[in-house]
Amino acid sequence: MSWNWYKQYSLHLPQLSFSLDCSRTGVDTAFIEAMSPKLQKALDDSRELERGGFVNIDENRQVGHYWLRSPERAPNATLKQAIEHLHADIQSFIKEIHEGRLVGATGPFRYLLCIGIGGSALGPQFVAAALGKGKADKLKPYFIDNTDPDGIDQVLDSLEGKLGQTLCIVTSKSGATPEPRNAMLEVESAYKQAQLNFADHTLAITSLGSQLDQHARAQKWLKTFPMWDWVGGRTSELAAVGLVPAALQGIDIQGLLAGAKAMDAQTRVEDVFKNPALMLALAWYKAGNGKGQKDMVLLPYKDRLLLLSRYLQQLIMESLGKEVDLQGTTVHQGIAVYGNKGSTDQHAYVQQLRDGLDNFFVTFIEVLKDREGISPDIEPEITSGDYLQAFLLGTQEALSQKGRLSCMLTIREVSPFSIGLLIALYERAVSFYASFININAYHQPGVEAGKKAAASFLNLKKTVIAYLKAQTPAAFSAEAIAMELSLGEEHIEAIYKLLKHAAANTQTHVFEKDAASFWETQFYYKA
Amino acid sequence: MSWNWYKQYSLHLPQLSFSLDCSRTGVDTAFIEAMSPKLQKALDDSRELERGGFVNIDENRQVGHYWLRSPERAPNATLKQAIEHLHADIQSFIKEIHEGRLVGATGPFRYLLCIGIGGSALGPQFVAAALGKGKADKLKPYFIDNTDPDGIDQVLDSLEGKLGQTLCIVTSKSGATPEPRNAMLEVESAYKQAQLNFADHTLAITSLGSQLDQHARAQKWLKTFPMWDWVGGRTSELAAVGLVPAALQGIDIQGLLAGAKAMDAQTRVEDVFKNPALMLALAWYKAGNGKGQKDMVLLPYKDRLLLLSRYLQQLIMESLGKEVDLQGTTVHQGIAVYGNKGSTDQHAYVQQLRDGLDNFFVTFIEVLKDREGISPDIEPEITSGDYLQAFLLGTQEALSQKGRLSCMLTIREVSPFSIGLLIALYERAVSFYASFININAYHQPGVEAGKKAAASFLNLKKTVIAYLKAQTPAAFSAEAIAMELSLGEEHIEAIYKLLKHAAANTQTHVFEKDAASFWETQFYYKA
Repeated sequence: MSWNWYKQYSLHLPQLSFSLDCSRTGVDTAFIEAMSPKLQKALDDSRELERGGFVNIDENRQVGHYWLRSPERAPNATLKQAIEHLHADIQSFIKEIHEGRLVGATGPFRYLLCIGIGGSALGPQFVAAALGKGKADKLKPYFIDNTDPDGIDQVLDSLEGKLGQTLCIVTSKSGATPEPRNAMLEVESAYKQAQLNFADHTLAITSLGSQLDQHARAQKWLKTFPMWDWVGGRTSELAAVGLVPAALQGIDIQGLLAGAKAMDAQTRVEDVFKNPALMLALAWYKAGNGKGQKDMVLLPYKDRLLLLSRYLQQLIMESLGKEVDLQGTTVHQGIAVYGNKGSTDQHAYVQQLRDGLDNFFVTFIEVLKDREGISPDIEPEITSGDYLQAFLLGTQEALSQKGRLSCMLTIREVSPFSIGLLIALYERAVSFYASFININAYHQPGVEAGKKAAASFLNLKKTVIAYLKAQTPAAFSAEAIAMELSLGEEHIEAIYKLLKHAAANTQTHVFEKDAASFWETQFYYKA
Repeated sequence: MSWNWYKQYSLHLPQLSFSLDCSRTGVDTAFIEAMSPKLQKALDDSRELERGGFVNIDENRQVGHYWLRSPERAPNATLKQAIEHLHADIQSFIKEIHEGRLVGATGPFRYLLCIGIGGSALGPQFVAAALGKGKADKLKPYFIDNTDPDGIDQVLDSLEGKLGQTLCIVTSKSGATPEPRNAMLEVESAYKQAQLNFADHTLAITSLGSQLDQHARAQKWLKTFPMWDWVGGRTSELAAVGLVPAALQGIDIQGLLAGAKAMDAQTRVEDVFKNPALMLALAWYKAGNGKGQKDMVLLPYKDRLLLLSRYLQQLIMESLGKEVDLQGTTVHQGIAVYGNKGSTDQHAYVQQLRDGLDNFFVTFIEVLKDREGISPDIEPEITSGDYLQAFLLGTQEALSQKGRLSCMLTIREVSPFSIGLLIALYERAVSFYASFININAYHQPGVEAGKKAAASFLNLKKTVIAYLKAQTPAAFSAEAIAMELSLGEEHIEAIYKLLKHAAANTQTHVFEKDAASFWETQFYYKA
């Protein structure tokens, strides 16, 4: 790579200890020139958003995640005070816990069990892993982010005998999302079995007045922290959703907020060569031709950042994966995101990246500081960390030789400030890219269909099992049941699958008889 | 979905408690008919491979991972005995450890530290998570799978005070792969600091006669288990690489081998409607038009299977991501693989899958048995596990409504047998698909370039720091250093990046001076 080219397409922000190298993304001055109307519009859109415009038009909502770290920029005093009050409230609550003034049934809180899914899990998990201090954590964090019974059992097994010193957080905007609701009920029952009062160990993070909020108040839980309708789940890491568990774990949330605020300021700059979010969004657009034609492969060379790609998968894919644009034209937009960490992933799929399909661009993430303390020399004057950097540079070079695109983010160290920077950088890059492609990044209309279909499968299951129960001990094939219940032919497959699941879990009292062909399998009920 | 269609394109193998539903993949009889020459060739190629043909032609090697669970099928008595001897050897070694006859410096072994990367980590990590029993594990497993100094520190922090009861496994075919070599040296130094003898707590898994094998023998390590040149890293989970750590953890490796053997037998069947690997490979071909045009999204609805996609990412992408076909024609093949688990991932990116880019096909993985023991009712007659299944079916339905392709694997439970089934299924599907697209699935020529480039960066770093040291205390920009060392302009960027990294790690004695522009930054050496 030519040094002049590198100098031109790299942004260095020494005051943030941050840089972004876009010299291998295909972005050049001609492309920037061609994009300049879109760049201007993106900056305008972002200003409108920050001013409090109802830019999530489908849901008629403001989009306020940038105010979370700059309450003074909130569009009115009520919102400003709400954010400031949250910050103060978190600090005073955390103090009570860390100083042992608010304790569990068997002693001071030492463990943290976070129950939540999607935006209520991915950010907290990422930050907990990135900034955790191991045995020095104030509270050791655990997560239940699914409705998998065995997964819940695994977490509860780890916490066996410790529930009396475990602080539970139930995070759910409405309180009606089934996964955290189910997990909450299972954990509550574990507390009951341990003869402990769940309410004395639990707080809620939810919309004020929600089902969960009402439940928490009725049961006299320790506390409710608010979720707001102007903060989407995938941008809630710097709202109560992310700040409360991080602060409980002992992470410096002021540092997180300061990092995000500093990056926000930088991403308001008009000059694309000084605005890393604008440059990054441009690189995405260039790589995928504004149509997501290339997958985004995220390779942070740092074990602590392993969960970054899962966090960004939601932020980017749920924001950008849209059927129609703002005018209602069908566009089928999006960018697929994957990756774990380097150099580990090199051993998994750099073979394909270099030699195979050219359907991706890589974002390398470099962390300059290797570790706390001194590294032993592995070879004369060469450390493990030198190898890690050499693999990063070597892989970029090897991909570049074959014309594969990549960019590189560099931070000095993994700290609350730099994690705040990264979160804010990607939030703004998503805002800008959404403006480039003219879509609403703040709604998620496509997720309802699956939930509705799931509800109808649950109803079908109840109907079918009730039928079998009523016919005890007679046995029927899925086909016969559909006929008996006057359900159309298109329901037979679902009946079969639901009953196979029921028969594998004895408490349902459903059993199956072996048959020559699977479709002849008969099911029956036996109490 | 029509019941007849479902019946036709679903494979049910009750004796394996396994089924594969390909009714939503676009595969139909016309497609199967059109593919029939390729199907026949794939079966023939697979037979040739199992017979001991040197099918990894570029490396002139046999490909023997199918023999690992059926030693009687090995092409000669030497190989057969080698495998049988390995199995016996593992069993007797494991017994010594579990019965406390071979112990660490401070007591019986209770912890397992696996050092390895790529094929030496992804399989063992997947199996450890899938089949671990939490507190009931015989040895609790830890992994170092990178050369990240801070990542190594995190693992060693968890094992502080426990090294005397920790059994270390260093896995590396040649022993020269830098990541495990570096981690081994760092762990060795941790043992030294704890005044423990590393050799008394460590075994090697490596090629006989390798650098690592020689080191292990010279240092009198506990044991060396063999790696063979006819087993590739990404197919080594059922060789010593995977079996040794699994058995130490307390996992039933006979069950793993039996599951794989049973699936192997099933995937030798000529009838595509009875051969799940053939059907799966067909579905991949159909989805991506034989060119990998669609990403493979893997969604197991079971927390224990979270690492399956990382394991399969290597198996599939490193095997199929190739530049040229067997005749040397440039083809740039591959399939991108990503995914974590359901229903969690629904909350991250089902929005994009349903509404956005149609550039993927989903593999749903269903586990019928919810948990050990009884589930509490969350609602009348509905459990957490019922929700999990309903989300799986609901999501497939919602995607299907929009024409998005998917298939579904169903296993009865997560057990050694079913994990063995899955490993063997994917190994064979990769073999078949590679035959369809006429590539060598068993080499990885594209990974060398990055390693070579990394080595040259390490050399450059040594040169540059030696120069600065010789010039102490004078300070130079990257540009000036390149000129002084008569290095071309194309090296300035690397010099800058290497020195930025050096300056962030004080032990290097390299420091930087702030400058108005990053490229004017001057670096100097100060002892």
